[in-house]
Amino acid sequence: MEVDKKEEIDSESSEQVVNPWEVSAKDGGKIDYDKLIDKFGCQRLDESLIDRVQRLTSRQPHVFLRRGVFFAHRDFNEILDAYEKGDKFYLYTGRGPSSEALHLGHLIPFMFTKYLQEAFKVPLVIQLTDDEKCMWKNLSVEESQRLARENAKDIIACGFDVTKTFIFSDFDYVGGSFYKNMVKVSKCVTLNKAMGIFGFSGEDHIGKLSFPPVQAVPSFPSSFPHLFPGKDNLRCLIPCAIDQDPYFRMTRDVAPRLGYSKPALIESSFFPALQASTLLSSLQLLKGENGKMSASDPNSAIYVTDTAKDIKNKINRYAFSGGQDSVEKHRELGANLEVDIPVKYLSFFLEDDAELEHIKKEYGEGRMLTGEVKKRLTEVLTEMVERHRRARAAVTDEMVDAFMAVRPLPNMFE
Amino acid sequence: MEVDKKEEIDSESSEQVVNPWEVSAKDGGKIDYDKLIDKFGCQRLDESLIDRVQRLTSRQPHVFLRRGVFFAHRDFNEILDAYEKGDKFYLYTGRGPSSEALHLGHLIPFMFTKYLQEAFKVPLVIQLTDDEKCMWKNLSVEESQRLARENAKDIIACGFDVTKTFIFSDFDYVGGSFYKNMVKVSKCVTLNKAMGIFGFSGEDHIGKLSFPPVQAVPSFPSSFPHLFPGKDNLRCLIPCAIDQDPYFRMTRDVAPRLGYSKPALIESSFFPALQASTLLSSLQLLKGENGKMSASDPNSAIYVTDTAKDIKNKINRYAFSGGQDSVEKHRELGANLEVDIPVKYLSFFLEDDAELEHIKKEYGEGRMLTGEVKKRLTEVLTEMVERHRRARAAVTDEMVDAFMAVRPLPNMFE
Repeated sequence: MEVDKKEEIDSESSEQVVNPWEVSAKDGGKIDYDKLIDKFGCQRLDESLIDRVQRLTSRQPHVFLRRGVFFAHRDFNEILDAYEKGDKFYLYTGRGPSSEALHLGHLIPFMFTKYLQEAFKVPLVIQLTDDEKCMWKNLSVEESQRLARENAKDIIACGFDVTKTFIFSDFDYVGGSFYKNMVKVSKCVTLNKAMGIFGFSGEDHIGKLSFPPVQAVPSFPSSFPHLFPGKDNLRCLIPCAIDQDPYFRMTRDVAPRLGYSKPALIESSFFPALQASTLLSSLQLLKGENGKMSASDPNSAIYVTDTAKDIKNKINRYAFSGGQDSVEKHRELGANLEVDIPVKYLSFFLEDDAELEHIKKEYGEGRMLTGEVKKRLTEVLTEMVERHRRARAAVTDEMVDAFMAVRPLPNMFE
Repeated sequence: MEVDKKEEIDSESSEQVVNPWEVSAKDGGKIDYDKLIDKFGCQRLDESLIDRVQRLTSRQPHVFLRRGVFFAHRDFNEILDAYEKGDKFYLYTGRGPSSEALHLGHLIPFMFTKYLQEAFKVPLVIQLTDDEKCMWKNLSVEESQRLARENAKDIIACGFDVTKTFIFSDFDYVGGSFYKNMVKVSKCVTLNKAMGIFGFSGEDHIGKLSFPPVQAVPSFPSSFPHLFPGKDNLRCLIPCAIDQDPYFRMTRDVAPRLGYSKPALIESSFFPALQASTLLSSLQLLKGENGKMSASDPNSAIYVTDTAKDIKNKINRYAFSGGQDSVEKHRELGANLEVDIPVKYLSFFLEDDAELEHIKKEYGEGRMLTGEVKKRLTEVLTEMVERHRRARAAVTDEMVDAFMAVRPLPNMFE
């Protein structure tokens, strides 16, 4: 049903395209997230839900919730209803390991997932889709497996609890119950439907057609018999960027026909690129879909491997400013916060609400200059990247093996 | 290239269709195997090759070779060239476990494969495509796995050497190196090409599109790292019915792009149905593609579960006779051997060449009556089915486990 709704709306309005491989707005402009919610048929994550999260977890909701980075959901309310009655769930997120160095946008779902794992005290599975990247990016099997392991180190560096977390690569793990679920899902999706949802064409290889079930089945606990024995009805909550929604629309469409629960979703907007005058997201830039800036432009994003000097330089030279052309004009008119990247970035990563409000007020009213805001952002990001780098350096191969070992998780539901 | 040739010929002449799901001749008539060889681009298995097999194996070639049941090949000569120089190969065949009871036609590839294994002293992998049958026949995962195990017992009853044979079910075995090869193959086949080769449509589910790589990859020794460690260039010979050719045309097309050897093939014609007045094959009848007789008509074939009484009754009542309407006319004109099913069946299963020639001569010239030929066929098939039943009854679950265990085969290349 959800799928049909999406297809129907697609045909009547094609001004913006959001799917796992393409994010583009009309005339290269800004993504309209309200329209996207309507088009995909998901729900807005409203204040009352966020209040409920606060009440149920007895802690302040994550910055990404308070500030609307995660802005949409599917059935998250049902997950909370069940949790309130004492029923746990599990988290599922993932990454396509197409590059060695992650940028800040890549960390967002993992930072948020770590918060969810801690706040709700639930198990987590993280899928590394090395098979997908081998097929889409034409990487060798060995190279995509190597990247999966390198990316696993960055993910582990985000601070996940090894006693509650299973990280797996598709090349390692596909088989057994997981493969059986892939076949079950494949039986329920016609070629026409897959082409409608994902926009595949006859020139695409059949690997692309075969992949959506691989991303679908971690939504079903029976795909992990060692993790969830006897808990085939455990619900699944998927934190992800909204471009992944098509995979899970398909999954939710199929689930009831297999006797499985639909996975719930909590979905984020895109993280903007440094140069994003029109708030093109870094996702857009890195996907190379939007004109000027190429997928390989290292100046479109801050990477976790950037040095303090790189970060300072990138922010000063490339971060698009909403400040005015001259100090005089700036004092008079103030900054346009709607397009200002330093303020956008601070709203993701500056945890202190009061300080953020202060900066927005002072900068918006012209009393604070772009240079000062960029300086503060440089401090925040440098500290964050340094902290990540230290944490990553401490991740040993043995730790990767421990997270990726196929094993029961004894503290799973403590 | 082979694929392109096939597609081109397809478009200019569509009088007969032969693919893994459909076998139909023009006007319900006889399959023209010469045209099929041209259309598919394979080679005829000629006398000189059969003589070579005799010389290399120091034994009389199998009845199915001597009498043209296996009539076509791809690169079988190269397999023999290498064998002559001391290079071994491995055999790969399989079965889609869609039904509990096998009929005689199902046994043909296994009887022939057993002969090849013994004559060339080579290892063998047998794929049970329970995933395929789950998807095509809409069986549950559990039911198709159960059928795979039941069929394995019939296969083992054919007399394979457990020290040289690995039987696997896809649901059990897909994963690891096998899955990596599936992904590599999938990358090389466009949707358009798959639709051209297999005739899929948009209404088919994506499981069907995902399956051809599953049947392709047992052609590559690296899919079985436990069996063929360090022998990634071992050549593969596939004995199969010619309706499976599309899978292996695709496989051969892809293999060089992956740095793998193309599998060689040795291909059989179809086994005729009992009532086949126009030599419709039992495959056609069982696939339900040809009008009158339904897929579930138990009288179209002799099953390995039939009793002696069943066999006698089926042959007497249903086996299409080329004899004349009256004894007088028969004595005068003789039987039409071209359409006579008892003689066809005897040419598959009566091993004594002299006796077969005698029957054909006497029957063809009217001195022997249909009843006498049917009586001899009843004896031959009853003995064969009884022998199979005894052998199958002796197959224990432990033996199935032994054949299906993932293990090195110590005597693999002795």
